[in-house]
Amino acid sequence: MSAIGLHRVLAPAGALPQAAERLDTRSELWPDEVRVRVERLNLDAASFRQLTEQAGGDREAVRATVREIIKDRGKMHNPITGSGGMLVGTVEEVGPESPLGLAKGDRIATLVSLTLTPLVVEDGLARWDGASEQVPCDGYAILFGRSIAAKLPPDLPAPLSLAVMDVCGAPALTARVVSTYAKPTVCVLGAAGKSGSLALAAARRAGAGRVIGVVPIERERAALDSAALAHEVVLADARDPVAVAAAVEQAGGPADVTIVCVDAPGCEGGAILATAAGGTVIFFSMATSFSAAALGAEGLAADLTMLIGNGYVPGHADLALDLLRTEPGVRKLFEERLAT
Amino acid sequence: MSAIGLHRVLAPAGALPQAAERLDTRSELWPDEVRVRVERLNLDAASFRQLTEQAGGDREAVRATVREIIKDRGKMHNPITGSGGMLVGTVEEVGPESPLGLAKGDRIATLVSLTLTPLVVEDGLARWDGASEQVPCDGYAILFGRSIAAKLPPDLPAPLSLAVMDVCGAPALTARVVSTYAKPTVCVLGAAGKSGSLALAAARRAGAGRVIGVVPIERERAALDSAALAHEVVLADARDPVAVAAAVEQAGGPADVTIVCVDAPGCEGGAILATAAGGTVIFFSMATSFSAAALGAEGLAADLTMLIGNGYVPGHADLALDLLRTEPGVRKLFEERLAT
Repeated sequence: MSAIGLHRVLAPAGALPQAAERLDTRSELWPDEVRVRVERLNLDAASFRQLTEQAGGDREAVRATVREIIKDRGKMHNPITGSGGMLVGTVEEVGPESPLGLAKGDRIATLVSLTLTPLVVEDGLARWDGASEQVPCDGYAILFGRSIAAKLPPDLPAPLSLAVMDVCGAPALTARVVSTYAKPTVCVLGAAGKSGSLALAAARRAGAGRVIGVVPIERERAALDSAALAHEVVLADARDPVAVAAAVEQAGGPADVTIVCVDAPGCEGGAILATAAGGTVIFFSMATSFSAAALGAEGLAADLTMLIGNGYVPGHADLALDLLRTEPGVRKLFEERLAT
Repeated sequence: MSAIGLHRVLAPAGALPQAAERLDTRSELWPDEVRVRVERLNLDAASFRQLTEQAGGDREAVRATVREIIKDRGKMHNPITGSGGMLVGTVEEVGPESPLGLAKGDRIATLVSLTLTPLVVEDGLARWDGASEQVPCDGYAILFGRSIAAKLPPDLPAPLSLAVMDVCGAPALTARVVSTYAKPTVCVLGAAGKSGSLALAAARRAGAGRVIGVVPIERERAALDSAALAHEVVLADARDPVAVAAAVEQAGGPADVTIVCVDAPGCEGGAILATAAGGTVIFFSMATSFSAAALGAEGLAADLTMLIGNGYVPGHADLALDLLRTEPGVRKLFEERLAT
């Protein structure tokens, strides 16, 4: 038995559960595990987008693919994007040695990726239409000794908590990085989305001097303007490096800290070009290409620190929920998003 | 005309040269460009490894694939790994507005990736056997206004300078990160290779308290031991996370700073597991998976800073060449490597 779940890895031998091809989904618990009755999956945005594009928008095909991935791998781990998502459920059984502090009946969200969480779907995803990242689901999942889960706060609707917790690493890491600069200019690509709006709010709280939101379409600009989270909101396609750099420049850039929250590939160049020498780029999108970022910065002779957005920062869920509760603009954007 | 070469992008429209599918390789110069007569390409290690594996070791097939990539894309940009390499050559013509300070006849190495350098091969790579990353080659390449190139130092053989400059971002960024900790324990995965040995030497100079080298085979352990660059050299397969963590632990770890210089995929988990909370992992390998790193850390609840190894740090070539000149162990490893 291992706190990180090595005993659940079926193949390849020696892999960590996240990197594994296939996990053991048996429902019997090892002593430090917890079994959760799943009610809802929340697919990673880059993964859902890729699945939808691959299926040419055929929702039934998206549904079938997700079912197959979970069945084949014993976890929801998109083989193309490498990403997963998270889940909400109710604790069904707690192993006698579990250190997670959970009790049977607790309603929780997992804060570790679905890419390492043993998962069995028992209803064939029959209640999901394949059209949304939020997947109603009956089945069970297993948490390890070192997995992280948070009890759902009683004052918020579950879908809202889930949506916030899904991206809670972004505001926490943003705050940490922004606070290392003095009144920095911060630019968020994909600023009207979940991680983007939380990152904007976190950057302001952490002492940013100027916060610039970049969005691709007028509707998002209007929504973000009315949320009043950024000093300036500009329109640009994040995949067009020259357009991004020009828009950020015009809004008071270049940025000292740029945060990439766009769930589409090809945003590395724009983020790099929009950032000043000595600045930091944080990539949160699972569609980020490591080599495009590394070679893109080198090719532009850009002296930047580039961070892989680690989804775990201590206290991340509490920070994100606090932003949701206290920033009406963030809450409005999340609620609009869930309503569509 | 653009200092970053936008005018050379044929497809897709609006892409940066690094991200582009195809570059314009016309030999006529725009006013700020430089044309270089190429004598040698140095393929990125992850790219060469991937090409060799794909060809099942068939050297003629490797040669043909490299020729085709360069012909199709107008640059050496491996579509699978996303990486390129660098080149050595002699300046053939300098545009009247070039800011690079180069003159006709200068022998130089490019310090920007081949993935963004317009390149034409004119000898069909006839002198290359497909068995080495170092590719003798006749042809020409184009440098942009903002490209970076270094004159080859007169006191060192060209292949040696080229090999050092190819990885010179690694020691520079290692030194920068190590110096932000007080006497940190530093672990280098792939420590007997080019970037690995330079990173070891740079870490010691930058104030590391303990330097641990991880290598996969006995021959490399013996070579690295005799180079005397690390306090301890341990054997482990970098793709086996549990083995890496155990080996580093035994050698005095976990590490405060872990540096990944292994050119094979699957090293993210080991690097994360071998690093202490509050530590930093720097990924230099082009075989790094962004999502495996991000989700791996999250899945292990690892509070780490993870850096994308930017190949550009001001002064990087001079620092690396200085290490080669003053650290006999580094020079010995490089010369042994070039001799095989």
